[in-house]
Amino acid sequence: LRTTIVASGEELLYGRTLDSNGAYMARRLGLSGFQILRHVTVGDSPAALYDELVRAGTDSDLIVMTGGLGPTADDRTRGAVARAAGAPLVEDAPTRRHVEERLKSFGRQATPAHLSQALFPAGSVVFPNPRGTAAGFACRLAPQAGRTQGALFAAMPGVPEEMLPMFDESVLPYLLDNAAPSGHAAIETLHLFPIGESDADERIADMNAEGRNPYIGITVGDGVITLSIRACGATPQEAAALVQRDVETIRERFGDLLYGRGGATLAQALSAKLERAGASIAVAESLTGGLVAKLLVDVPGMSRWFLGGVVAYADAAKVSRLGVPQELLQRHGAVSAEVAEAMARGACAAFGASLGVSTTGIAGPTGGSAQKPVGLVYVGVCLQGRCAVHRLELRGDRVRVRDRAAKYALNLARLALLRGVDAVAVAPAGVR
Amino acid sequence: LRTTIVASGEELLYGRTLDSNGAYMARRLGLSGFQILRHVTVGDSPAALYDELVRAGTDSDLIVMTGGLGPTADDRTRGAVARAAGAPLVEDAPTRRHVEERLKSFGRQATPAHLSQALFPAGSVVFPNPRGTAAGFACRLAPQAGRTQGALFAAMPGVPEEMLPMFDESVLPYLLDNAAPSGHAAIETLHLFPIGESDADERIADMNAEGRNPYIGITVGDGVITLSIRACGATPQEAAALVQRDVETIRERFGDLLYGRGGATLAQALSAKLERAGASIAVAESLTGGLVAKLLVDVPGMSRWFLGGVVAYADAAKVSRLGVPQELLQRHGAVSAEVAEAMARGACAAFGASLGVSTTGIAGPTGGSAQKPVGLVYVGVCLQGRCAVHRLELRGDRVRVRDRAAKYALNLARLALLRGVDAVAVAPAGVR
Repeated sequence: LRTTIVASGEELLYGRTLDSNGAYMARRLGLSGFQILRHVTVGDSPAALYDELVRAGTDSDLIVMTGGLGPTADDRTRGAVARAAGAPLVEDAPTRRHVEERLKSFGRQATPAHLSQALFPAGSVVFPNPRGTAAGFACRLAPQAGRTQGALFAAMPGVPEEMLPMFDESVLPYLLDNAAPSGHAAIETLHLFPIGESDADERIADMNAEGRNPYIGITVGDGVITLSIRACGATPQEAAALVQRDVETIRERFGDLLYGRGGATLAQALSAKLERAGASIAVAESLTGGLVAKLLVDVPGMSRWFLGGVVAYADAAKVSRLGVPQELLQRHGAVSAEVAEAMARGACAAFGASLGVSTTGIAGPTGGSAQKPVGLVYVGVCLQGRCAVHRLELRGDRVRVRDRAAKYALNLARLALLRGVDAVAVAPAGVR
Repeated sequence: LRTTIVASGEELLYGRTLDSNGAYMARRLGLSGFQILRHVTVGDSPAALYDELVRAGTDSDLIVMTGGLGPTADDRTRGAVARAAGAPLVEDAPTRRHVEERLKSFGRQATPAHLSQALFPAGSVVFPNPRGTAAGFACRLAPQAGRTQGALFAAMPGVPEEMLPMFDESVLPYLLDNAAPSGHAAIETLHLFPIGESDADERIADMNAEGRNPYIGITVGDGVITLSIRACGATPQEAAALVQRDVETIRERFGDLLYGRGGATLAQALSAKLERAGASIAVAESLTGGLVAKLLVDVPGMSRWFLGGVVAYADAAKVSRLGVPQELLQRHGAVSAEVAEAMARGACAAFGASLGVSTTGIAGPTGGSAQKPVGLVYVGVCLQGRCAVHRLELRGDRVRVRDRAAKYALNLARLALLRGVDAVAVAPAGVR
């Protein structure tokens, strides 16, 4: 089923906000076998929205849209949709009660703007919004020239916290019941680190030809390479088997570089290794300033392995909080292999952890020198007293350098648990 | 000048990656007075891209596009653009040399796929890419029916690290020289925290009417409300004066809730206050697990005020690393006002800082109870020995609870420096 994804909002049009809703729906719809034709973002103008609905109606079977359903004065979606559906707006009594009651629970009276949220094109299916006042809805648009049936249309509020659960709980089940795609698709995503895009591309060049089934897409996102393997089959089983065959080939070709699948983060991969090893972890961060700890804590249940961390930003904190010898700092400087190792050891000692990870380096924009340029980073790991330090020369700005350094640190810890510290003692060549 | 922004890439179409390039260009073009009509994302299909170029050619004066210029097999943009321009692809000799030399510096030979990156529609202006092999280019498309001149078209690579500097250094200056917009726009963005969308909307209802100049848009992003004030004028000065008048009114209406402008983060706002006060800061995090420190370190130059932090995730670490009395933990539990205050004091003591900030709470999804549900958070601040603690009941998942808690902590520290600890001792009502 050919699908157009629409987002409405001046703040999206002028780039003040990123449209994460569209990407979320695209992933979920793609997994269910829907073919995505395009995403379109328009502003608050009802005329522009109407034009998009007409245009999408010429080549799409389904149009899903977010935004423009709120009570604020710049939400003018309803009228445009009603016009495209050729149906008047009518009030849905349960939605009106919900809006009134929700406002009352905040001690407020519903205004006409609030109550306009109970208006939908006649014949719509309404999707309740327990998390807000803007209900979603689905209706059929009027058919465009040359088509016998109009496109199915579904609208949801733009606030992700309301939209995401509404999509999963109400809209996607409704679409699967009322607009089931022909054929079946299977998608798997595999994540690689650290490797460059063209290197990864070369290793799978024979699997990447135009029109091949499965189709393999390569994406770079924040230093992580993602391979998306998307297969079509007559049955879900056939599609899944096609994907699985490619997954095995890719696993053989990339080895330890393949750290996870299905959106897994490096911290999740590390968490699984910590669980298997029965290890505990502590971190000592200078350069990354809390980011390594933050990425660990992003993983639910991390408290079972993660004991704590020290952000030793000032040199005095490295001495007093991590027991880094003052003499090491004076002789080698804070950005050195020696200090990275002492910090990793200090993290283990401070928290009584079996595994310690450390970062020190120069994030920029200032603080670099000829000998120690911006982007120079040392990442250390200690596992039960044995340590390894990798020297990295990272490119990019302050945000990129810290992000990559944190990922290298998590990955080094993962590899140390997987292969032992001695096996990771030497940094791979070409690391940037 | 009416502008369409196009992004190409299967990984964008199926939601594996968010299109941050489009938002970036939209912000920059909007500030220069370009009118954005829409953003469109298509996949790798040259036919779909060609259709978009034709369609945009009917109503746009300018089309800017990212993606599809790389050496990988799924980059097929060039042919579609050449067709829309009605011009053959010709090789640009300097670009070919750059591609060959760049690959040579990595010890590699240029393949035909690499060399295809030197092909552009005849008559194109080429934008060099010092950071990669994919150069950008601009050309004029063939005019669509009813138009005397075709749209100006500019293409850039999709990798943000290559695209963003190319846009700023080459493409935008070229567009300003060759496609200057009529009239002038001024935009200002103001950021509010903590306040809800409808509350913010109500306070500016009189300034928010359709068609008003300036236009004020309201956005919610990760708990921060952003007001975008966009004015048009005959001169840049006139547009700026219209915006400034609204800025003053908004400042009066929102007071301390208005923490910054122009994309400023709460950490940046706090950094400015730390500088003015000559204060130093240390953090003690349980719940937020390094996020408060990370947000601080996001600000370049933060090392002047930020001494360090402790991520005391395990209770034992709260005792040993922050000096929280064991007895307090036993009597009140780790999630309590008493422990939050002791942690903030401990942060000051551990790092010798004048200002200490702490977080403790239950992020979920597990760990809640009837008395202490998921989302219960205590945020503490100590300034030169005087402390205040706010109790928050936050909604949402693990990521949201930690994000909001970290922002409340930064904001509490900002307000403590602005008004004194005693003035912030009582948490505002309705905090979620």
